[in-house]
Amino acid sequence: MTEYKIQFVPHEKEVTVASGETLIRGAMAAGVHINASCGGEGVCGKCRVIVETGKVDGGISEKLSREDIDKGYRLACLSRVRNDLVVRIPVESAVDAGVLNQVAIPRKTARIKERNLEELKEKGLFVPPVEKIYLDLPAPSLENNIADVTRIVHALRNDHGEHRLEFDMTVIRKLPDLLREADFKVTVTIARPVRDEGKSRIINIEAGDTTARNFAVAVDIGTTTVYGQMIDLATGQVMAQYGDFNSQISYGEDVISRIVFAEKPGGLEILHQKVVETINQVLEKIIKKSKVEPDEISSITLAANTTMTQLFLKVNPRYIRRAPYVPAAVLYPPVAAASLGLNLPSHVTALVFPQVSSYVGGDIVAGVMGSGMAHEDALTLYMDIGTNAEIVIGNKDWLVCAACSAGPAFEGGGIKMGMRAAKGAIEDFSIDPVTYEPMNITIGNVRPRGICGSGLITMIATMFEMGVISNNGKFNRDLNTPRIREVEGVYEYVLAWKDVSGTDRDIVLTEIDIDNLIRAKGAMYSGCMTLLKEVGLTIHALDRIILAGGFGSSVDLEKCMVIGLLPEIDTDKVTFLGNGSLLGARMSSLTNRIRSDVGNTLSRMTNFEFSETPSYMDNYIAALFLPHTDLNLFPKLKRRLDERKKIRPCC
Amino acid sequence: MTEYKIQFVPHEKEVTVASGETLIRGAMAAGVHINASCGGEGVCGKCRVIVETGKVDGGISEKLSREDIDKGYRLACLSRVRNDLVVRIPVESAVDAGVLNQVAIPRKTARIKERNLEELKEKGLFVPPVEKIYLDLPAPSLENNIADVTRIVHALRNDHGEHRLEFDMTVIRKLPDLLREADFKVTVTIARPVRDEGKSRIINIEAGDTTARNFAVAVDIGTTTVYGQMIDLATGQVMAQYGDFNSQISYGEDVISRIVFAEKPGGLEILHQKVVETINQVLEKIIKKSKVEPDEISSITLAANTTMTQLFLKVNPRYIRRAPYVPAAVLYPPVAAASLGLNLPSHVTALVFPQVSSYVGGDIVAGVMGSGMAHEDALTLYMDIGTNAEIVIGNKDWLVCAACSAGPAFEGGGIKMGMRAAKGAIEDFSIDPVTYEPMNITIGNVRPRGICGSGLITMIATMFEMGVISNNGKFNRDLNTPRIREVEGVYEYVLAWKDVSGTDRDIVLTEIDIDNLIRAKGAMYSGCMTLLKEVGLTIHALDRIILAGGFGSSVDLEKCMVIGLLPEIDTDKVTFLGNGSLLGARMSSLTNRIRSDVGNTLSRMTNFEFSETPSYMDNYIAALFLPHTDLNLFPKLKRRLDERKKIRPCC
Repeated sequence: MTEYKIQFVPHEKEVTVASGETLIRGAMAAGVHINASCGGEGVCGKCRVIVETGKVDGGISEKLSREDIDKGYRLACLSRVRNDLVVRIPVESAVDAGVLNQVAIPRKTARIKERNLEELKEKGLFVPPVEKIYLDLPAPSLENNIADVTRIVHALRNDHGEHRLEFDMTVIRKLPDLLREADFKVTVTIARPVRDEGKSRIINIEAGDTTARNFAVAVDIGTTTVYGQMIDLATGQVMAQYGDFNSQISYGEDVISRIVFAEKPGGLEILHQKVVETINQVLEKIIKKSKVEPDEISSITLAANTTMTQLFLKVNPRYIRRAPYVPAAVLYPPVAAASLGLNLPSHVTALVFPQVSSYVGGDIVAGVMGSGMAHEDALTLYMDIGTNAEIVIGNKDWLVCAACSAGPAFEGGGIKMGMRAAKGAIEDFSIDPVTYEPMNITIGNVRPRGICGSGLITMIATMFEMGVISNNGKFNRDLNTPRIREVEGVYEYVLAWKDVSGTDRDIVLTEIDIDNLIRAKGAMYSGCMTLLKEVGLTIHALDRIILAGGFGSSVDLEKCMVIGLLPEIDTDKVTFLGNGSLLGARMSSLTNRIRSDVGNTLSRMTNFEFSETPSYMDNYIAALFLPHTDLNLFPKLKRRLDERKKIRPCC
Repeated sequence: MTEYKIQFVPHEKEVTVASGETLIRGAMAAGVHINASCGGEGVCGKCRVIVETGKVDGGISEKLSREDIDKGYRLACLSRVRNDLVVRIPVESAVDAGVLNQVAIPRKTARIKERNLEELKEKGLFVPPVEKIYLDLPAPSLENNIADVTRIVHALRNDHGEHRLEFDMTVIRKLPDLLREADFKVTVTIARPVRDEGKSRIINIEAGDTTARNFAVAVDIGTTTVYGQMIDLATGQVMAQYGDFNSQISYGEDVISRIVFAEKPGGLEILHQKVVETINQVLEKIIKKSKVEPDEISSITLAANTTMTQLFLKVNPRYIRRAPYVPAAVLYPPVAAASLGLNLPSHVTALVFPQVSSYVGGDIVAGVMGSGMAHEDALTLYMDIGTNAEIVIGNKDWLVCAACSAGPAFEGGGIKMGMRAAKGAIEDFSIDPVTYEPMNITIGNVRPRGICGSGLITMIATMFEMGVISNNGKFNRDLNTPRIREVEGVYEYVLAWKDVSGTDRDIVLTEIDIDNLIRAKGAMYSGCMTLLKEVGLTIHALDRIILAGGFGSSVDLEKCMVIGLLPEIDTDKVTFLGNGSLLGARMSSLTNRIRSDVGNTLSRMTNFEFSETPSYMDNYIAALFLPHTDLNLFPKLKRRLDERKKIRPCC
């Protein structure tokens, strides 16, 4: 990938971007503010910059006069970088430039944590749960007329050292005709026991040598979305992935409303069928995409939160939502996939990740197992950020976990103009410290339609550090900008006026939105604090933080620390796992070590119910500020805020 | 039970019979011949006897004159014994009486071998496969909100020393509501692993204390008949038994014709459904009879020959009937009973007895296991006598087995007037050595309708020993009796003339019938000889013989030795197991020792295919005589025949 250097003046900032990137995104990455309210569609015409050295593709619009163009003016949002550049940002005064420089907030996204088959093999962790073995059997004769099954058992024992085998009934039913049609040259699929003392199960038999074709499906059943992956068991590669909305959604947005529906007559059956329908749709897509025959699929591993698990397995979730919040089970037996209604051959067994408690489910267990934290020395904070936020702290010696209800703010819920991370969502933001004009960058570079989770965090963090929002989450009423206004008693900031918005109205951020975000981050942070305190540790003890969830790897970690969602920690210590649940399910498809270790991990995992932990509420109240009541917990931020005061003592 | 002594004169024979027994059956038991062709219905009026001392109930008929009655004449078949008696049999001459005395053939039926729970307990063999445990659990609280399954696991571990548990999905589904409805007082049903290292499975959960109600079903799936028993697992008692014809019969009488039908499109499915229908009918009857709730049934164990097993499990039996006669499997995995179509609750697992080969099936394995021969020192010959006859020889150190096709003669098939052992079947027989008049005793004491297996053996043995049939199975053409006649080129003996028969025609025994019986017994005997020879032994090495099959415990062992069906052995060494298949299934329901030992027993069991054993045909040809080409193999019989020659050198 070709990269180019952009030097921004007068800020004296430099950034390296991929060829074809827009200038405005380059500026955002460099921490250089450019007014831009239309999200990058070239509508507002405010992101005027002067290309002093080098040339860009595009950047010319009717918003620029002939004269301006000749002077080198371009619209940053429409200019694509094709070589090294020097770009000047026209600022009102030298003071402005100085201010811009001083207060620039560091930007850092999380490294993405990947685990692959090679790593597993290196660590001796690769114990494939399903293997295929090709057999060229001697044909029966009157001198050797042992049973068909026995013939296979003998070949596996004598030629492959396989012992303690059992056959599925479905295999026995296929066997007599298939053996003879295939001239006694067949491939058997063997499911390995999780424990050494268990039996290996022959789950399938195919004519000829099919050892190269062995696949598994991994599924994350989210409350909102269901993701599936087709995995090549020979290479460990993901051959296809597909996600779809969980069609239970029409029966309730969150787990509580699903449980309420499940309690109605027939409700459980409906929700079970709905999620199975969705999984079947996902299966259909990934089967088609990967060009795998259904009969070549050997297993399906699913991870889900406790409610989704119980609904999928048709186990009444009624007592999950009622004190004392008791799940039906934490460990579930393997179940024939077809018996659950999944469109998979009869030999496929569905393996479901175990749970810890009603609110720390199989999705978290999968993430913890997939991340490897339960096997390493490093003291890790694992956070799955979503409506129901789960926190796990520990290492190979101990683990504690808890869940808190963060509310839907991180996913755009409860936010007036909140939306999912889809086209038109403001995903990045900056604000001019003098004029308070915004710089909105949207997904797809189109007019803004709303704010997604990562955009919201960046927005609130930036406004707070710039003094636009105070530490109690209120807008500074004294600022001289038409963008801050009061509507029906609620203060709000106008991110994009109606004429440049992607909807028919102004795009705004309200104090209620800010309050919701503060509650959400407060719940998460106080969860971490409470858990740490319960085990007698402080934030300083943490060696690393693993983020998981639909939250997105693009979220700005430094901004998360500004709002007090994450504790202040070296951002190098933060990794992003993505969909930890899906990762864990995939890992478990590739190695039995996950399943053999999970029982042990679960037994070491102490669950805290925050409703039973009095300090949680105290911590929560203290966390309902930006970043926190106690600013000393965020020393780097404190230093920057002190710097800002020196520059602009007025604020 | 009150018993009385009957002294028969002039024979000077004595017999003890139960009060109420008929005089004619008493005479038969004593080896005293009385002419009687109407089977005991009092129609022919030939069984005239004189009650000299004591009195009988009944015995008076229009066939007797006033004068006769006053003299003490009674019809033996209608006279019931109510006190000690002296009974005179009117004979033509003293010679006759002498002859009668000399040639009387010993009579001996087999002792019935019973194994019960107490015996198992004494021998330390009682390892119940399914147990119930009552739990009074603490209710959940916020301090103790472990999962429902975990709560049960903890109670079982801490209070009952139960480890390595797994839960069926069906139990988990019932659990949340049931626990709360039952106020956390529940009974769990635990299925024990066959091997010590296996897991115990929780297969059911019920409200309250139901430990006293724990039942199992044992089933023998015969080609002709299906028998089921309801067993109380607490006491080992059979609470109900029911047998019904296998409704596959309409698709073929024997296994070969069933296999042929199964090969037709849809045939396998039909035969599977038919046998399941029959089992369901049997289940319905025994459930009703025993007043057991279906949910109280914990397991079902089934034993059947290889073809019946494969049809029941829906495994194509096509290769069983084609050389080299390969069965699909010898060991089958446990299968959910409901998944096979059995009307049993979802928690019930069907366990199917393993097979040895295509023609030595689970019914034989069950019988061998149930008889205990595989665990004892005594060298045993186990014979399951039926259309397909199976022979097992061995002891705790080694076992050999083979099957031969005896043909249906023993079950009344291929016999002109053959019938099953039902009302009207001649089951016992004697012949007057002077007049050649018959003494027929029928099941139910009614007019004869035909001949059942045990009757046929007794009849042919008696006629052979009396010189009516020669050793090549032909009637003696020189005898002066109208009962032996030629019809359409075939010689036959009229057992009952039309006027006293229970049908509209004469009841006869033909030379073709005799030939069929000789072939059947020849197959069995030569099977024994061949197997013994293969292991380097002779008949004299046998410590005992176990008979199994629908053959009936009432068959006269001495007569079996006369025809050469059984080798001559002390009759005390012969035991009768009855339905060995059903016995084995019942035993397996009561103790896991059967299942844990069966693999070991199977591995020690060497199967011989007689088609591959050249000496079998030689032995067979040699056995196609009464009792055998080599009379020296039957020394006791030889002695008696020699005695007879002395008395009546004419024959």
